[in-house]
Amino acid sequence: MFITFEGIDGSGKTTQALKLKSWLEEQGHEVLYTFEPGGCELCKGIRELLLSNSIKDDIARLILFLGDRKLHVESVIEPALKSGKIVICDRYNDSSIAYQSAAGLDYKFVREFVKSFNFIEPDITFMFDIKAEDALRRLEGRGRDKDAVESSGVKFLSCVREIYKDIAACESRIILIDADKSELEIADLIRDYIKNLN
Amino acid sequence: MFITFEGIDGSGKTTQALKLKSWLEEQGHEVLYTFEPGGCELCKGIRELLLSNSIKDDIARLILFLGDRKLHVESVIEPALKSGKIVICDRYNDSSIAYQSAAGLDYKFVREFVKSFNFIEPDITFMFDIKAEDALRRLEGRGRDKDAVESSGVKFLSCVREIYKDIAACESRIILIDADKSELEIADLIRDYIKNLN
Repeated sequence: MFITFEGIDGSGKTTQALKLKSWLEEQGHEVLYTFEPGGCELCKGIRELLLSNSIKDDIARLILFLGDRKLHVESVIEPALKSGKIVICDRYNDSSIAYQSAAGLDYKFVREFVKSFNFIEPDITFMFDIKAEDALRRLEGRGRDKDAVESSGVKFLSCVREIYKDIAACESRIILIDADKSELEIADLIRDYIKNLN
Repeated sequence: MFITFEGIDGSGKTTQALKLKSWLEEQGHEVLYTFEPGGCELCKGIRELLLSNSIKDDIARLILFLGDRKLHVESVIEPALKSGKIVICDRYNDSSIAYQSAAGLDYKFVREFVKSFNFIEPDITFMFDIKAEDALRRLEGRGRDKDAVESSGVKFLSCVREIYKDIAACESRIILIDADKSELEIADLIRDYIKNLN
């Protein structure tokens, strides 16, 4: 089973991805938690490059995210799935579409270009929906990631959120999660979806 | 027909690619001359980024070359071939393999990674073989590109040349051209190969 978590920073997706991992392991499953960009040894330099925000060309950024994914899928995700593990991936195709479209690239072009790579499709995607302002407030509370998010701006993240919702409306694999709910409620919700999948 | 030209800078490949274009047009063919990186509208930023040498991570560079190629193939090369044109492309897969391996990435990894993109194969590739020192001297004579090549160094370009030759030894589509020959001799040689292809 291949599960992805999506949402803007501060939406709570990583917390829930790790909670799900623990719960699945308690059920006796072997689980790999991984993330993008930079989820494989070869990709670490790409993550650094992307998070440093030094590359301003939107197409170059999109390509780096997709190349990172190609290496990650081939060297980490597919081998783990083949060995019978459940794979939980923090950010995947939907992140590329939402963020790179919000950054200014044509939505349809990005969607088609991402699709043309034919990356393995997740069985289920939990997409955390939250207002950009609320996500920012949470990050401030945590005292981390704040600069990175603030530099992108509330307007940009609101745009990312809207595109995420557009994608969710077209893809039955995506479960839109109201990220305003409590951690406990969300964890229960996710477990119920996973139980129903089996 | 899809023809590629390969070789280190200063090997004379671009001159000959353009000569071949003119000759093919005289024969009544429609010909598209194009190049990498940056051969399509969307790719111009990637070319700038790559030629500026600001990206030091070798994997990121390789990915940018391959993403550039993906866009170029889909938006320029394949449409031109479908419309019946002969396409001449200045640098292609072999450049990525030779340069990125010489830069320090594992040759076998680069080869497999490039292959995994399944880009359309050239029908014929003219690979210009020349000593790095001689190529450099030519560039000095032309008064251009010199800095870019010198910064890479003779040692690096000699290594690129050796890998080019390794690739040529395994691929029957590749014609190794002795770039020390005169422009006229080389042009004749290339025309003969093309005539024999038909």
